[in-house]
Amino acid sequence: MNELSERPIGIFDSGAGGLTVVKAVTEELPRERIIYFGDTARVPYGIKSGDTIRRYALEDVHFLTRFEPKMIIVACNTASATALAYLAQHVEVPLVGVIEPGAVAAAGASRSGVIGVAATEATIESRAYDEALARLRPGVRVVSKACPLFVPMVEEGRVTGEVAELVAAEYLSGLSDLGADVLVLGCTHYPVLRAIVVSVVGPGLHVVDSAQETARAAARLLEQRGLARTAGEGSAAFYASDNPGRFRRLAGLFLGRLPCSVTLVEPEEFFSAAARHD
Amino acid sequence: MNELSERPIGIFDSGAGGLTVVKAVTEELPRERIIYFGDTARVPYGIKSGDTIRRYALEDVHFLTRFEPKMIIVACNTASATALAYLAQHVEVPLVGVIEPGAVAAAGASRSGVIGVAATEATIESRAYDEALARLRPGVRVVSKACPLFVPMVEEGRVTGEVAELVAAEYLSGLSDLGADVLVLGCTHYPVLRAIVVSVVGPGLHVVDSAQETARAAARLLEQRGLARTAGEGSAAFYASDNPGRFRRLAGLFLGRLPCSVTLVEPEEFFSAAARHD
Repeated sequence: MNELSERPIGIFDSGAGGLTVVKAVTEELPRERIIYFGDTARVPYGIKSGDTIRRYALEDVHFLTRFEPKMIIVACNTASATALAYLAQHVEVPLVGVIEPGAVAAAGASRSGVIGVAATEATIESRAYDEALARLRPGVRVVSKACPLFVPMVEEGRVTGEVAELVAAEYLSGLSDLGADVLVLGCTHYPVLRAIVVSVVGPGLHVVDSAQETARAAARLLEQRGLARTAGEGSAAFYASDNPGRFRRLAGLFLGRLPCSVTLVEPEEFFSAAARHD
Repeated sequence: MNELSERPIGIFDSGAGGLTVVKAVTEELPRERIIYFGDTARVPYGIKSGDTIRRYALEDVHFLTRFEPKMIIVACNTASATALAYLAQHVEVPLVGVIEPGAVAAAGASRSGVIGVAATEATIESRAYDEALARLRPGVRVVSKACPLFVPMVEEGRVTGEVAELVAAEYLSGLSDLGADVLVLGCTHYPVLRAIVVSVVGPGLHVVDSAQETARAAARLLEQRGLARTAGEGSAAFYASDNPGRFRRLAGLFLGRLPCSVTLVEPEEFFSAAARHD
């Protein structure tokens, strides 16, 4: 048995949203051990500056490296858009972000060459999807739509009902008129709204879930490098930098089950982890 | 002239929401010099734990003390609810929070003895309004309503329209049926939604704006202590711990005008300010 394959997969996000990626990874790679870190003391990242996001993301990665992961998944669109290249300069663990896998799936699925992207303000402003899609499929037209109410709606548990439908329709119902035939859900919270989004955009739009695509990309990478764990049961351990109770409640929404326990990472421990590596 | 009266008033919030308090203070005390600090690197506080909120709030206060303020207004309901007593143990500047003034006004205005409180999840969970109202008016009944979509709605500029009306009605239209005759807007973002809230709750409910009441309380305190500035023009200077561009845009919503400039406070400077005082 390859010893490296026994190591865990580290996954982080600014908060609990990245748990949709944990869910997808668990389904795709049921034997893997997952260590999840949610930086709930500083959530959300999406409204912060690039410099601040890079600093926070590096601290998150440094926290995860103490578990000697074989791979780290940046399960946060904002951090993937803003900090992935920066992180790669600072750590040697293979890194997988959530932008590229969704962009690859969308570029492959579109016939019309017009692709809709639903994401947070910060992800849209970063133009990360525009750049990835233009590189993967030159000439593609990207129609971006910031959906600032989606994250609080999900966290409120408001995933059905009149308000959710109105808001989803307002943000996304115009996409097919613009010729889009694919819609990327470019935020880790959004898969929870998948049903309502599909009902609003209609059957003509193929919906790409970036959490699922990321899990598939991670599985391929482990396979190619001979790093996949091939025996034994999978597991997941959860760490949060603040408010583990709220994290646990949200985890129910994103994972579809309550995690057994969430370990609070004290700020001193957390920041000193980064300091030691700097 | 009393030299102390020439000193500025320090005001802080986790982000830009406290600017509704700045607006009210400017109207109530037009000659005062205001230093505002928004901790936008760690916004929002409302979903974080008590320990974390107290630590952040103390760092905010320590940043403001370098301007030698004659008073500090904690223009954040979450920090007022969670950290005010803790802050008072650590600094000697008079502190004014946003909970007590709104509670005093509500306790005085209600005839029915049933008072509605609209606020964030964290403020509701802190029970700060329940405690203040029970102390000010024993036997009062408090009907609390968390309104988690209000802050993102305001920040999106969505203060009119069908979704805003539906959401406001869903949260607040049942209050008068429960006998409430007063509604406290217990979050610094909410005054921006005042018009839609009034239209939804109807004329039978008196709406108390905690930002306005806080400005009045600050004015009374300065008057009583002979600390009010009695000549010269007022001014306001704005500091933020991250993303001054976004802060400036939001300031337009809360202040009704764009601030001339927003100074970015680098994290090192910011944290070292706290470290020096600890």
